[in-house]
Amino acid sequence: GELRLDLGRYSRCGVPEVIYGPGKRPDQIVEAFELLARSQQPALATRLTPDQAEALLMAFPAATVNSLARTVSLGSLPRHERTVCVVTAGTSDRPVAEEAAETARWLGAPVELICDVGVAGPQRLLAELPRLRQAAVVVVVAGMEAALPSAVAGWVAVPVIAVPTSVGYGANFGGLAAVLSMLNSCAANVTVVNIDAGFKGGYVAGLIARPHEPMRAGN
Amino acid sequence: GELRLDLGRYSRCGVPEVIYGPGKRPDQIVEAFELLARSQQPALATRLTPDQAEALLMAFPAATVNSLARTVSLGSLPRHERTVCVVTAGTSDRPVAEEAAETARWLGAPVELICDVGVAGPQRLLAELPRLRQAAVVVVVAGMEAALPSAVAGWVAVPVIAVPTSVGYGANFGGLAAVLSMLNSCAANVTVVNIDAGFKGGYVAGLIARPHEPMRAGN
Amino acid sequence: GELRLDLGRYSRCGVPEVIYGPGKRPDQIVEAFELLARSQQPALATRLTPDQAEALLMAFPAATVNSLARTVSLGSLPRHERTVCVVTAGTSDRPVAEEAAETARWLGAPVELICDVGVAGPQRLLAELPRLRQAAVVVVVAGMEAALPSAVAGWVAVPVIAVPTSVGYGANFGGLAAVLSMLNSCAANVTVVNIDAGFKGGYVAGLIARPHEPMRAGN
Amino acid sequence: GELRLDLGRYSRCGVPEVIYGPGKRPDQIVEAFELLARSQQPALATRLTPDQAEALLMAFPAATVNSLARTVSLGSLPRHERTVCVVTAGTSDRPVAEEAAETARWLGAPVELICDVGVAGPQRLLAELPRLRQAAVVVVVAGMEAALPSAVAGWVAVPVIAVPTSVGYGANFGGLAAVLSMLNSCAANVTVVNIDAGFKGGYVAGLIARPHEPMRAGN
Amino acid sequence: GELRLDLGRYSRCGVPEVIYGPGKRPDQIVEAFELLARSQQPALATRLTPDQAEALLMAFPAATVNSLARTVSLGSLPRHERTVCVVTAGTSDRPVAEEAAETARWLGAPVELICDVGVAGPQRLLAELPRLRQAAVVVVVAGMEAALPSAVAGWVAVPVIAVPTSVGYGANFGGLAAVLSMLNSCAANVTVVNIDAGFKGGYVAGLIARPHEPMRAGN
Amino acid sequence: GELRLDLGRYSRCGVPEVIYGPGKRPDQIVEAFELLARSQQPALATRLTPDQAEALLMAFPAATVNSLARTVSLGSLPRHERTVCVVTAGTSDRPVAEEAAETARWLGAPVELICDVGVAGPQRLLAELPRLRQAAVVVVVAGMEAALPSAVAGWVAVPVIAVPTSVGYGANFGGLAAVLSMLNSCAANVTVVNIDAGFKGGYVAGLIARPHEPMRAGN
Amino acid sequence: GELRLDLGRYSRCGVPEVIYGPGKRPDQIVEAFELLARSQQPALATRLTPDQAEALLMAFPAATVNSLARTVSLGSLPRHERTVCVVTAGTSDRPVAEEAAETARWLGAPVELICDVGVAGPQRLLAELPRLRQAAVVVVVAGMEAALPSAVAGWVAVPVIAVPTSVGYGANFGGLAAVLSMLNSCAANVTVVNIDAGFKGGYVAGLIARPHEPMRAGN
Amino acid sequence: GELRLDLGRYSRCGVPEVIYGPGKRPDQIVEAFELLARSQQPALATRLTPDQAEALLMAFPAATVNSLARTVSLGSLPRHERTVCVVTAGTSDRPVAEEAAETARWLGAPVELICDVGVAGPQRLLAELPRLRQAAVVVVVAGMEAALPSAVAGWVAVPVIAVPTSVGYGANFGGLAAVLSMLNSCAANVTVVNIDAGFKGGYVAGLIARPHEPMRAGN
Ligand SMILES: Nc1ncnc2c1ncn2[C@@H]1O[C@H](COP(=O)(O)O)[C@@H](O)[C@H]1O
Ligand SMILES: Nc1ncnc2c1ncn2[C@@H]1O[C@H](COP(=O)(O)O)[C@@H](O)[C@H]1O
Ligand SMILES: Nc1ncnc2c1ncn2[C@@H]1O[C@H](COP(=O)(O)O)[C@@H](O)[C@H]1O
Ligand SMILES: Nc1ncnc2c1ncn2[C@@H]1O[C@H](COP(=O)(O)O)[C@@H](O)[C@H]1O
Ligand SMILES: [Mg+2]
Ligand SMILES: [Mg+2]
Ligand SMILES: [Mg+2]
Ligand SMILES: [Mg+2]
Ligand SMILES: [Mg+2]
Ligand SMILES: [Mg+2]
Ligand SMILES: [Mg+2]
Ligand SMILES: [Mg+2]
Repeated sequence: GELRLDLGRYSRCGVPEVIYGPGKRPDQIVEAFELLARSQQPALATRLTPDQAEALLMAFPAATVNSLARTVSLGSLPRHERTVCVVTAGTSDRPVAEEAAETARWLGAPVELICDVGVAGPQRLLAELPRLRQAAVVVVVAGMEAALPSAVAGWVAVPVIAVPTSVGYGANFGGLAAVLSMLNSCAANVTVVNIDAGFKGGYVAGLIARPHEPMRAGN
Repeated sequence: GELRLDLGRYSRCGVPEVIYGPGKRPDQIVEAFELLARSQQPALATRLTPDQAEALLMAFPAATVNSLARTVSLGSLPRHERTVCVVTAGTSDRPVAEEAAETARWLGAPVELICDVGVAGPQRLLAELPRLRQAAVVVVVAGMEAALPSAVAGWVAVPVIAVPTSVGYGANFGGLAAVLSMLNSCAANVTVVNIDAGFKGGYVAGLIARPHEPMRAGN
Repeated sequence: GELRLDLGRYSRCGVPEVIYGPGKRPDQIVEAFELLARSQQPALATRLTPDQAEALLMAFPAATVNSLARTVSLGSLPRHERTVCVVTAGTSDRPVAEEAAETARWLGAPVELICDVGVAGPQRLLAELPRLRQAAVVVVVAGMEAALPSAVAGWVAVPVIAVPTSVGYGANFGGLAAVLSMLNSCAANVTVVNIDAGFKGGYVAGLIARPHEPMRAGN
Repeated sequence: GELRLDLGRYSRCGVPEVIYGPGKRPDQIVEAFELLARSQQPALATRLTPDQAEALLMAFPAATVNSLARTVSLGSLPRHERTVCVVTAGTSDRPVAEEAAETARWLGAPVELICDVGVAGPQRLLAELPRLRQAAVVVVVAGMEAALPSAVAGWVAVPVIAVPTSVGYGANFGGLAAVLSMLNSCAANVTVVNIDAGFKGGYVAGLIARPHEPMRAGN
Repeated sequence: GELRLDLGRYSRCGVPEVIYGPGKRPDQIVEAFELLARSQQPALATRLTPDQAEALLMAFPAATVNSLARTVSLGSLPRHERTVCVVTAGTSDRPVAEEAAETARWLGAPVELICDVGVAGPQRLLAELPRLRQAAVVVVVAGMEAALPSAVAGWVAVPVIAVPTSVGYGANFGGLAAVLSMLNSCAANVTVVNIDAGFKGGYVAGLIARPHEPMRAGN
Repeated sequence: GELRLDLGRYSRCGVPEVIYGPGKRPDQIVEAFELLARSQQPALATRLTPDQAEALLMAFPAATVNSLARTVSLGSLPRHERTVCVVTAGTSDRPVAEEAAETARWLGAPVELICDVGVAGPQRLLAELPRLRQAAVVVVVAGMEAALPSAVAGWVAVPVIAVPTSVGYGANFGGLAAVLSMLNSCAANVTVVNIDAGFKGGYVAGLIARPHEPMRAGN
Repeated sequence: GELRLDLGRYSRCGVPEVIYGPGKRPDQIVEAFELLARSQQPALATRLTPDQAEALLMAFPAATVNSLARTVSLGSLPRHERTVCVVTAGTSDRPVAEEAAETARWLGAPVELICDVGVAGPQRLLAELPRLRQAAVVVVVAGMEAALPSAVAGWVAVPVIAVPTSVGYGANFGGLAAVLSMLNSCAANVTVVNIDAGFKGGYVAGLIARPHEPMRAGN
Repeated sequence: GELRLDLGRYSRCGVPEVIYGPGKRPDQIVEAFELLARSQQPALATRLTPDQAEALLMAFPAATVNSLARTVSLGSLPRHERTVCVVTAGTSDRPVAEEAAETARWLGAPVELICDVGVAGPQRLLAELPRLRQAAVVVVVAGMEAALPSAVAGWVAVPVIAVPTSVGYGANFGGLAAVLSMLNSCAANVTVVNIDAGFKGGYVAGLIARPHEPMRAGN
């Protein structure tokens, strides 16, 4: 195999290596899933083209495809009860949110999705506060001026993972406006990942949500 | 005189030329006020050093000094009843907000100041909605991630003039984060002026607030 | 419905939510228009693809299509007599100007369009001053160095909404040069919206132009 | 009082409002501490000048001063046993690391500080792995090219909060190189806060480290 | 001598090497003037501190000091009759304009200075058109949005050398807004030099203004 | 006609308005040429698509097409004897150089083209010095690090117009590296136009090269 | 021939001119190879399209094609024994690494390729240390946060040539994050070339690896 | 001791850890030198304040101070005969060049310094070619447009290490123009280090110049 798959990551980092699709041939990705399956590790691949996804599904008919998220997963980490809440500002942030949700689910968390509650219609967020405040951690996905993470953070007692998106135009400069906005959040409980990095947002949220005891054991 | 003061601006633009302090000697600024006074025009100077302000006060004991705003004014345009509301996100945005307030007052508007209602403590803004919704126009002054203008804009039926400030540190890059955020506001009623430009925010708000009839006449 | 349409925006902000086309399926946009129509609200959609526009026209044969502006509207807010003047610097700024004009018209304003009066041919603007000075508010659409808003602002007594465009090449950096230029305007009555945001320019201009009395009532 | 202190933040967000020093008079900060003390809330102030710190110490002799961190605290949130590990790349990153450590301690966590283990001397990090892998969460403070968070993240099964610093010169552009590097980390468990924002790094780490049960109750 | 003065530049480039002050000791600058004087070349030094200027004046009492321009010159190139016109937008652009004027004069050109004719007061430029249109070349010095070069260029049949200045604040980003604006001028006869580079503006203008015949000889 | 062609530009600026192709329909461009022809003005259009060029050639069989330069011209300004020299650094800078050459020729100048003399092969430029030093003005077209204008400027006694190109990759950032390099040239006789703006480089060079006497008359 | 090939570069710089493919017709590239072959110089062409590569192979059946690297070479410089080690962080950095390897081989060096040893799986690099430490010089190819060059540099006693790639997304801004990261490396033995410039990385490594004696002779 | 000095770097990387002055107390730096001296390693400290340098000199009277370079060294690595040539463009680049020279000397190389040969006076570099072409490696130190590395690289058969400086003003943006220019050099033998990083330039040059045999042994 041409890939140097990091099979030790599950024991070292508590999560198996996740396959990043761009630049890999479908057969390489299938091979990676086979290696993981053979060593009893759950598998996840992200940013897949339809061709890559199809090849995986052919080889692993039991795999789960999320075409909006552009992910395929096989198995998952142990499931628990601490919810990850994924919130989006607008309709176009949905694919990034799906990638975050899919990743958090694969890490074992129940996921709540709250869509389209951007600050321009502020009563929408207020109406969702009860659901939001149940979460063990919140992922907020937003583009344009990305005001939503700060607005959410002011209402919850848990970490907020802000995922900037490239949604918007003009002076958004491909997500620069959103990522700068989030880094400068006046709310103390906000951290930030890369632009359009739903995967990372869901991953860190998944780690935070995991019950403490099993993790200790997993170390 | 070394200054080419634009004395025709009052008739042409409905407001006299405002004196911008930086780079001018105190005697030059006093001379500008004298020229305006002699031609019966109200006067305003901004971004003054203490020395410049003092020289103006010596020459015009009736002038109004606002040391937080760093302005001096003499007279004002005709007063009316349509309120300009100036809102700040945090304590450090105050000086820019004062400059905006002072300018709008000089243009004839009653001014309401609502301070320290940033989104990290969202119930603070909700408590001020009744006062906010009286205004003919709202000026929102915010630094860091500048989420407040979008949050305010979602609650009002009037234009929101967003004034980014250089308040913050690190990835605020001197106000860049705030100005990009505001330009990308998902709220349709938000427009933006330069970083720390309280003067401009107050000026445009003052123009918008003016009753229509007198303006027509003034054209 | 997958969309969380903000039907309360008309009463809260005095204007119904406007539909932003990118990333939405034609049937989603048609559904949004249906919801607005059912609750007696005028409707506007922007940045439409030909497919989206066609779907709307099929469902609402009475709708108005502006293919240059890429908008479709159904009904409008109450019409009044205070003019919005939309000015362009060059021929290529036209589509953005059309979007601004279409939005202002939908908000109820009569619109005057003055095209191709960039500063390289300064006598063209001088010839249009009488028309320009009738307006209750001016929208200036310009790319490249975006000198026109300052040039216009020096001749009028009303707010100037500057809309930077991505027209140009090289060191325009997709509209960055224009938006920085406009933010730094030495004219006090200039505010700025996002690059290519004709919609926002027309929206704010439409709000400013509205007669004061009805607005009060609308609050 | 001129400050609109957000006294409800403790119950709403599980942590009292933290006082940000810049731009506040010493007496304003003392007043804020008094308000917090009176309502039985622990207090923390950051980015203090020596004058501000001294005023606090005069008024509250029981307060804890950390002059490297530029913080003063009074009381703390309930202490627990889950460790926050703060790691620095170089000697000059120490003040930011101290701010992070002080904040995490105030939130109730035991803190381990591992200094000066940048990647140019890779055996230093390897030697600290046992201590590092005990932590419930890791804060990595690094300037220049900020390679350390990725290097640390590859060895642990918990979230890594990366704090970029402005340490370095030239093409670091005040921390821009570090923050971009961290946002692009190829390790999935890395999130990022603002440049030099030791406070935020420590805050989020403190939230993550908190035992789950008390938090539920605190909601 | 520590300096490698380029004494051949006069014959090679038609103008002697000009001394750039920053980073040189006063005695080094005096020595450079001595070398030039000894080889019969006129001398010019720019961006001088008061100490450097004084040392030059002590050594060369016949030298010309312009303290606004921060230049000292000794002799000049052959004088001719083709005028360089230097135009400024605002009062604060004056020092850069003086440096340009001083350099053009030293290159032999008569200089006309037209100050404070920024586009916010457009009738000021219109009033100066007759004087402006006499020039063989125009240097336009402007900060903030730098609209003036395009406005001037539309009225003249000669090259316009645009000198951006760092005058302004906020989103001027130290002159970035002005230099981008000028590079994107829609007027075809505009070229640009570095920010605050009055020297370069005056130098190129001086070269352009020189009568053709003597230059040919000088080659 | 939809175009507001500036027919007064010839008398005002000494050169007719040049037609900029992008965003115009072929028939609009043909109409512009007809207007110019009818008023006895030479015509030039730039940045043409093959379709636009063909439409012009159909309507004006006497027109001159340069497909590398993407220009079409009809007639020219009065021819003279003062040469414009256009120099390129590498093979890929050729199209921009052709646009410059075509524009200068249309303005009446004889043009010398010296290609592919970038500094990586320094003997190539040295070999061309005699030809280079005949020119009345030099246009240097270069991408990547754009060292050539400074290297050329050190050998000539005339203005150098530097045209940055977007040639290169990676950290050239679409020509940003080249334009910054040129603005910072340590040679005093270098001015700069927009990235890829061969038209502007050739235009200003053409203005500078024009004999003085006819210009005076043309004013 | 239209190309001004620098045939003296072999004797002047110790390596023949390398042909850069973009913007050249296949026949021009074949002609360049013919010129080099005729003067007994080895030839290399980079960044070739399939068409360009095929034309070369038709004309020179003995040429070596590397389609991943997009290079074609004919002959090579004298081979020696000092190894160039090329290291990549991830799978997608492979094409840039191949270009580096191919260039170093053509310069005469044996090349070792170590792939996919990014810092997220740190044990992978540790396992390769023995091979890595044999090299006379190391080329490290990395995108995203580009932490690998610093990590490698801490283990070797030779220069490290860092080649940033545009691999990644979002806040990598086309390789900007990687190049800034590398320039700020805290390891003293790291130098940097352009983004995606495998050619340059391999070239400088090839120069460094060359045995000293032959080079002297080649001067 | 508070510093975690990397005493193994000499054996691992062939050069002892170099002390970076900023942010360290004088006694900390003295302690570092003592640790190095005690383990028989030569010592170098860079970017020292006068106080830091004095403390070192008091403790180690045999140390070598270079106040222009702001370095102090004690002993050196084994001396050899392969020259490092350090070239500067202008007078103000001297301190950075001295830091490079001092570092290369400490690494054992003889150093030739060639100053003030920027491209604006091109005959100066031509006159130094014989000296330049003796070097085993060349360090080129340049600010502003940084054309010199490409110009030098075209004449030599060895690697060129380009050190950008922050010398200049305006659109140099603190050295950004220089570093971008150098990264885009059309000469294949140019690599780049951080802005003002004379230390790094001298370090890599010193590594390259070292005779091969001793290095092998040192591995
Ligand atoms: N604080 C301010 N910020 C921006 N522009 C201002 C300010 N105060 C006054 N101005 C404008 O500055 C212009 C005067 O510039 P100057 O000719 O340099 O005095 C006037 O046209 C005012 O509209
Ligand atoms: N060092 C710090 N960096 C960033 N934010 C802080 C810091 N210290 C306190 N804060 C936040 O600043 C806010 C207070 O801002 P202000 O209203 O301007 O006092 C609080 O909500 C804190 O969460
Ligand atoms: N290639 C070009 N680059 C920049 N400006 C040009 C170019 N060709 C023509 N122009 C200018 O573009 C202006 C016409 O713009 P428009 O009104 O959009 O047609 C004229 O004033 C010309 O001076
Ligand atoms: N892949 C490459 N990246 C950067 N420069 C290259 C590359 N391949 C060749 N070159 C250089 O490009 C120059 C040729 O440019 P040109 O004259 O446009 O063909 C030569 O001096 C080579 O050193
Ligand atoms: Mg919505
Ligand atoms: Mg507050
Ligand atoms: Mg036009
Ligand atoms: Mg250290
Ligand atoms: Mg003025
Ligand atoms: Mg070539
Ligand atoms: Mg991998
Ligand atoms: Mg010099």
